Amino acid sequence: MSEIRYNRLKNKWVIISIERSRRPHDYPVSVYEESSDVSKCPFEYGNEDKTPPEIFAIRPDGSLPNTPGWKVRVVPNKYPALRIENSNLPESEGIYDKYGGFGAHEVIIETPEHFKHIQDFSIEEYKNMYFTFRERMRALYQDIRIKYVHIFKNHGKEAGKSLVHSHSQLIATPIIPTLPDTQINQSRIYFQEKERCLLCDEIKEEIKSYNRVVYENDLFIAYCPYASLYPFEVRIAPKYHSHDFSMIDENQLLKLSEISQVVIKKLHKALVNPPFNMILHTSPPIRDYPAKPLYYNGIDRFYHWFIEILPRITTLAGFELGTDIYINPTIPEDAAKFLREVI
Amino acid sequence: MSEIRYNRLKNKWVIISIERSRRPHDYPVSVYEESSDVSKCPFEYGNEDKTPPEIFAIRPDGSLPNTPGWKVRVVPNKYPALRIENSNLPESEGIYDKYGGFGAHEVIIETPEHFKHIQDFSIEEYKNMYFTFRERMRALYQDIRIKYVHIFKNHGKEAGKSLVHSHSQLIATPIIPTLPDTQINQSRIYFQEKERCLLCDEIKEEIKSYNRVVYENDLFIAYCPYASLYPFEVRIAPKYHSHDFSMIDENQLLKLSEISQVVIKKLHKALVNPPFNMILHTSPPIRDYPAKPLYYNGIDRFYHWFIEILPRITTLAGFELGTDIYINPTIPEDAAKFLREVI
Repeated sequence: MSEIRYNRLKNKWVIISIERSRRPHDYPVSVYEESSDVSKCPFEYGNEDKTPPEIFAIRPDGSLPNTPGWKVRVVPNKYPALRIENSNLPESEGIYDKYGGFGAHEVIIETPEHFKHIQDFSIEEYKNMYFTFRERMRALYQDIRIKYVHIFKNHGKEAGKSLVHSHSQLIATPIIPTLPDTQINQSRIYFQEKERCLLCDEIKEEIKSYNRVVYENDLFIAYCPYASLYPFEVRIAPKYHSHDFSMIDENQLLKLSEISQVVIKKLHKALVNPPFNMILHTSPPIRDYPAKPLYYNGIDRFYHWFIEILPRITTLAGFELGTDIYINPTIPEDAAKFLREVI
Repeated sequence: MSEIRYNRLKNKWVIISIERSRRPHDYPVSVYEESSDVSKCPFEYGNEDKTPPEIFAIRPDGSLPNTPGWKVRVVPNKYPALRIENSNLPESEGIYDKYGGFGAHEVIIETPEHFKHIQDFSIEEYKNMYFTFRERMRALYQDIRIKYVHIFKNHGKEAGKSLVHSHSQLIATPIIPTLPDTQINQSRIYFQEKERCLLCDEIKEEIKSYNRVVYENDLFIAYCPYASLYPFEVRIAPKYHSHDFSMIDENQLLKLSEISQVVIKKLHKALVNPPFNMILHTSPPIRDYPAKPLYYNGIDRFYHWFIEILPRITTLAGFELGTDIYINPTIPEDAAKFLREVI
């Protein structure tokens, strides 16, 4: 049974994952599946019984669950970091603090095609992927024990991908994670002073100067943030104010798919198929529930969801790990110019 | 000229490093020197002119600066992230905030022997290394523009090491970095409530339960923290209360060297030469200087320096990068038991 332990000194949480427990000889972890093993891949048509039973699927042909015919398929992770059966209660252990390993860990299989990667997705495939994100988020937020749903994609081995077949992951936690909490709090502080949304102001500034813009359409903008943590980091955000990704509508899904396709293709070409993490940052659900931090009141006015793409072409070393200051060896304005000019 | 940009949303600082500026075709960075190129290594006896002039050296034979004969040699980094010549003043850029790239970036060459790595260091070599850390820290804290001195070692390519020859690095910053600031603040909050040092209490608990202790001598303890972020993470801390590494005396240096040698040898054996980062966490200097945050008052009572060793045998992926929650697949109690039993 997993646990979520609190590191008081660093103010960080750690999931001690018993399901994945490893002894010294199990390292370094290298489970990257060979491309040739298609028949063994649990994400292929006909191999639906090699995963736990599906939670959700897009099946335009009306096919039965756990059979071929799906476009996108969501299944529980076979080695989950967190489980819905575990306790969500805080406990002590000596002087230390922890939660039980409550939560959810799902895999979103974005395509039945083994060799199709995100840089080759059609607009329709992007739209199915984002639609699935929205549906899973809406469903999980019905459970009031879940405080946050984090959705991300690891692309390439150096970005932590363990199976070749294209997929995203969803981890739902009984706590609001540190980084979303920091982002929410920073946005709140800014709003308290200016009565304006921090990201709305940033987007306005980016459109004005235009030297960090990578691409835009009528609803979304893609830009390299002024203080990008990673070289060629790109943020995709709605130009309209919205705190919660799960409120996205059909037309917005379409426009998000279009800009995502353009940006991923540009990165793929400019950096020659770089490994990257794609991360969705959004609001926790708004509920009349006492455990929600009080300072989240009004979050719909001050927070703004976004997607970030973090190329993993440098190594985080002792400076970054010890200070939480990042060294970025590519000027964001140069990165944006380069990506703008790549067709 | 480098800049230190503020990422308001994430409350993080980013060094935009112009000296190391890279265009897309410069990635992925792979400058790991071949072991065979000893004659070209700038850290060899006789190659002293291949580095900038030395800042400090241990020369028991009284040899001249920038000649052979040294045991430890400190030189400026040839491609510094920060420079002492740059501005340390805050500036604006549109709606954004930055500092000039003021600071220092030094390389501590711990041995003249090209093929000698830290797992093979004698106690005397550890002592020379830590003595040098102390001397550089004391010297740099004389400059009131420097707010923090961060010293770290990258061991192995996956931990970010770029030259084979054993060395540590020192980066001095005009701001107090995020993670040290968080650790200081968390220790302060704990002290305000209990009037006790957080790490002193942790060490007491660890000695009582003993299930996370790796090794101890009369002055130091090595243990796997309760909420270790990384598998087989080890913290080495003084059993006596001390907020500032730079106050360490000769006998303490000796005992720190002894425990470090034992712990590194154990990790080397248990995980078969794992890549790791070794990081020194200590107090900023105490000064009567208005820029020091007021809430650092009394830091000598509530903060406690320590060294951490972070094995890099797992990959940080979209979950860690997006939430700042870590997944650790080895239970710290199991890691400690294993390391205790390795001879």
